[in-house]
Amino acid sequence: MHDGRFGFCVLTSATEIGSTKSPCTMDATEFRRRGKEMVDLIADYLENIEQRTVYPDVEPGYLRSLIPEEAPEEPDTYEDVVKDIERVIMPGVTHWHSPYFYAYFPTANSFPAMLADMLSGAIGCIGFSWAASPACTELETVMMDWLGKMLKLPEDFIAGTHGQGGGVIQGTASEATLVALLAARCRVVRMILASDPQYPETGITSKLVAYSSDQAHCSVERAGMIAGVRMKKIPTEQSDKYAVQGETLRRMIQEDKAAGLNPFYFCATLGTTPSCAFDHITELGPICNAEKIWMHIDAAYAGSSFICPEFRPLLNGIEFADSFNFNTHKWLLVNFDCSTMWVKKRSDLIGAFKMDPLYLKHGHQESGLITDYRHWQIPLGRRFRSLKMWFVFRMYGLKGLQDYIRKHVELAKEFESLVRADQRFEISADVVLGLVCFRLKGSNEVNETLLKRINNGRKIHLVPCLLSGQFVLRFALCSRTTESRHIREAWQLITQLAEEVMQELPH
Amino acid sequence: MHDGRFGFCVLTSATEIGSTKSPCTMDATEFRRRGKEMVDLIADYLENIEQRTVYPDVEPGYLRSLIPEEAPEEPDTYEDVVKDIERVIMPGVTHWHSPYFYAYFPTANSFPAMLADMLSGAIGCIGFSWAASPACTELETVMMDWLGKMLKLPEDFIAGTHGQGGGVIQGTASEATLVALLAARCRVVRMILASDPQYPETGITSKLVAYSSDQAHCSVERAGMIAGVRMKKIPTEQSDKYAVQGETLRRMIQEDKAAGLNPFYFCATLGTTPSCAFDHITELGPICNAEKIWMHIDAAYAGSSFICPEFRPLLNGIEFADSFNFNTHKWLLVNFDCSTMWVKKRSDLIGAFKMDPLYLKHGHQESGLITDYRHWQIPLGRRFRSLKMWFVFRMYGLKGLQDYIRKHVELAKEFESLVRADQRFEISADVVLGLVCFRLKGSNEVNETLLKRINNGRKIHLVPCLLSGQFVLRFALCSRTTESRHIREAWQLITQLAEEVMQELPH
Repeated sequence: MHDGRFGFCVLTSATEIGSTKSPCTMDATEFRRRGKEMVDLIADYLENIEQRTVYPDVEPGYLRSLIPEEAPEEPDTYEDVVKDIERVIMPGVTHWHSPYFYAYFPTANSFPAMLADMLSGAIGCIGFSWAASPACTELETVMMDWLGKMLKLPEDFIAGTHGQGGGVIQGTASEATLVALLAARCRVVRMILASDPQYPETGITSKLVAYSSDQAHCSVERAGMIAGVRMKKIPTEQSDKYAVQGETLRRMIQEDKAAGLNPFYFCATLGTTPSCAFDHITELGPICNAEKIWMHIDAAYAGSSFICPEFRPLLNGIEFADSFNFNTHKWLLVNFDCSTMWVKKRSDLIGAFKMDPLYLKHGHQESGLITDYRHWQIPLGRRFRSLKMWFVFRMYGLKGLQDYIRKHVELAKEFESLVRADQRFEISADVVLGLVCFRLKGSNEVNETLLKRINNGRKIHLVPCLLSGQFVLRFALCSRTTESRHIREAWQLITQLAEEVMQELPH
Repeated sequence: MHDGRFGFCVLTSATEIGSTKSPCTMDATEFRRRGKEMVDLIADYLENIEQRTVYPDVEPGYLRSLIPEEAPEEPDTYEDVVKDIERVIMPGVTHWHSPYFYAYFPTANSFPAMLADMLSGAIGCIGFSWAASPACTELETVMMDWLGKMLKLPEDFIAGTHGQGGGVIQGTASEATLVALLAARCRVVRMILASDPQYPETGITSKLVAYSSDQAHCSVERAGMIAGVRMKKIPTEQSDKYAVQGETLRRMIQEDKAAGLNPFYFCATLGTTPSCAFDHITELGPICNAEKIWMHIDAAYAGSSFICPEFRPLLNGIEFADSFNFNTHKWLLVNFDCSTMWVKKRSDLIGAFKMDPLYLKHGHQESGLITDYRHWQIPLGRRFRSLKMWFVFRMYGLKGLQDYIRKHVELAKEFESLVRADQRFEISADVVLGLVCFRLKGSNEVNETLLKRINNGRKIHLVPCLLSGQFVLRFALCSRTTESRHIREAWQLITQLAEEVMQELPH
């Protein structure tokens, strides 16, 4: 049976043709053809992304009316599916890889990573234990060492062949923060029970207190909610560049201890989401160590930059941390998801989660030589994500990755100069890496109006933040293909809209 | 500069050639070529997977010695990277998609899903909110409706345009179990505080008690640890086919309430990991509803089968559940990760997690029409995973998917017949779907030896389970390409090894 609609159908075991029409499935031969078409479609998409509207002009619910209410009984043709990519999907896509996208923080996208991900999908192993696919576990451990060495992490964090620490790929920084918090909770409960075995465990939890900056990502507060522990926000000041100061943490710890609470976890941020601020970990670390408080460092965005010697000082103090995480999938050309996390003592993580049912046991388990990554994370299953790191690190080389980071920082500096050269605007926070926080001098209202005008224009896309009560525009370098001309074009557009807004609104 | 090693280098901004050699990056043109090669590599791999050793013969640490200790400074060639796939990776891969793989449970792998995943990687949006990429959120909601309708879920679980429920793609069933538990914890705390606002919140948590079967997946117990609540295992009996009985749950609830505890969550399992047992949810559901206990149903493996009318009765009682989850990425041809979860009241989930910093706010947020999926899950970021569902559902059609499920069940029945026809063996649990639990009549030792022999032979791969203290072999239909001949071949091998083992060991 071969016709237009079922062009590549293979009719199998159809004893009564017509009544039991067989499914139309895609086999390897067909995949060779369709896969190559998809490669071209992807290359076309990324080569011409600049011509698309970066921020979609659709209303909520737009998609439902474009497709049927139920899945088809019989297969659709592949041609119809591909046609629907432009008809149904693209009109509703926010194009994160457009050079006109300056919102949130970047998410990585590179050709070597996509190639590796294709391979990962085909191998399709679920690497929850060493035995479930040794290559999946072992490449991950070695790639985390490679990356750790690029960052010049202290030896404690490198697995090597005999290390007590090491790295793991988490899905997101949110999960890394939570995993560290749970490990810290487990460690402090054990410490307390060791000194006072009669202490009721639920009583312990109710006295625990964790800390993070008031500039920390919302996922830190959320981790506290999930773990059921108190999470206190440490106030920061504009005059301190929104960084947590040692003195403030020390005072809060003392007050909390005096009130009978038990401080056990501090999440420091290097490169906050609102303004890319850096907590003073060289001051904070020794305090945490002295108080036996777990220090986790969330460098979700900024972490990638530490591979450059000139930015590595921002990570000084890492030697005091128990765990450290950043999103390689943000700024290091490895597609989402790849959130890289290191711990000094892997036993701290594993102890918090270990479960060993028989169906997951394997011969090498007790050898002490192997890693079962399921004990390091919230989910059980995991993809072969280290392939992406391997392809990217090898195809760019350390120098290529450094050049990429530097280019974004240079472009951010260029944008900063444009802002500073215009008396109507002000820079709202130090530009350290690829984020520029700026605003029109004037009311929040005028800035909110400006941002709305920018996003409604759909030529470029930005999101705001609040700094010391001020509504601020965030201009984040995101796309791999952003060049100086895009920056200048964006600035021209912003100033043009600003002029309009200022003429309309009372100043 | 064009030579063998840097065949596709583009030298950019190299002011001083030699001293500042530029990174060798892969551009779209090169990707067109390498992507097509990768498509062929993938097709070759999957077409010839049968010829590979299903379970790798490597020792822990094998990989580290095969690659450098650090990432290269300068880029490697793509040719070298590709060569290393066979040299470094493949020797350590457990081939989950080999028709000789019968371990754990299946993980899906299909060509339409791989094509969709390629597209998803290229679009590379992070769909944490509606505005972050409306298509990503909207296709997910509609695909979850499509799948919900295939399963004939009660209307309450369908989002539609005005529904209070709906679906979300989680990464894994472990996360779905945890998310449901956290939502349940939040709901019960609010209920108690509503009736007694003076009740100390930490006191509430310490009195909470959750339940699951002693056959439930280890991730359920782990969810209890993470959430910091008591999780009690409900005993099951071989005579009850390892299913939780209504009477047992009722008794435990009464005892716990009498002891001053507060039962709030029950995780039912449909298709347990050890033996594919089904808890009696038609009995258990009304008990949970009467006691205001959140009933979550984990049907990680079995859920896919409910798209067939003949297996749908296994889901009867779903109307009593608050949430339901299964792994579309296990048995429904959608590559990992795609764990599909539905809730009756989306407000129950969202209420447990909601955080709204300014940088994630958007214009449509308060309209009530949109979904921000970040409130439904543990991570913040999320890939465009619904594309895989869309491609697979359309390219197979409902009938194609049903045929696929039925084929696996038939093959399992065929294997069961082979076992039953051999007097030396016994079947250890009802064969309902694609899992056959069997063992040699005799000691655990003889069965452990048999399994070890099977896996060391590396021709087929199985894992064990414990049922009522008995060591049992699990034969799970996994690969998309398993045929009757593979089943017969596997059985021949098993009986041959069994003969050897029985001759060697005292009976």
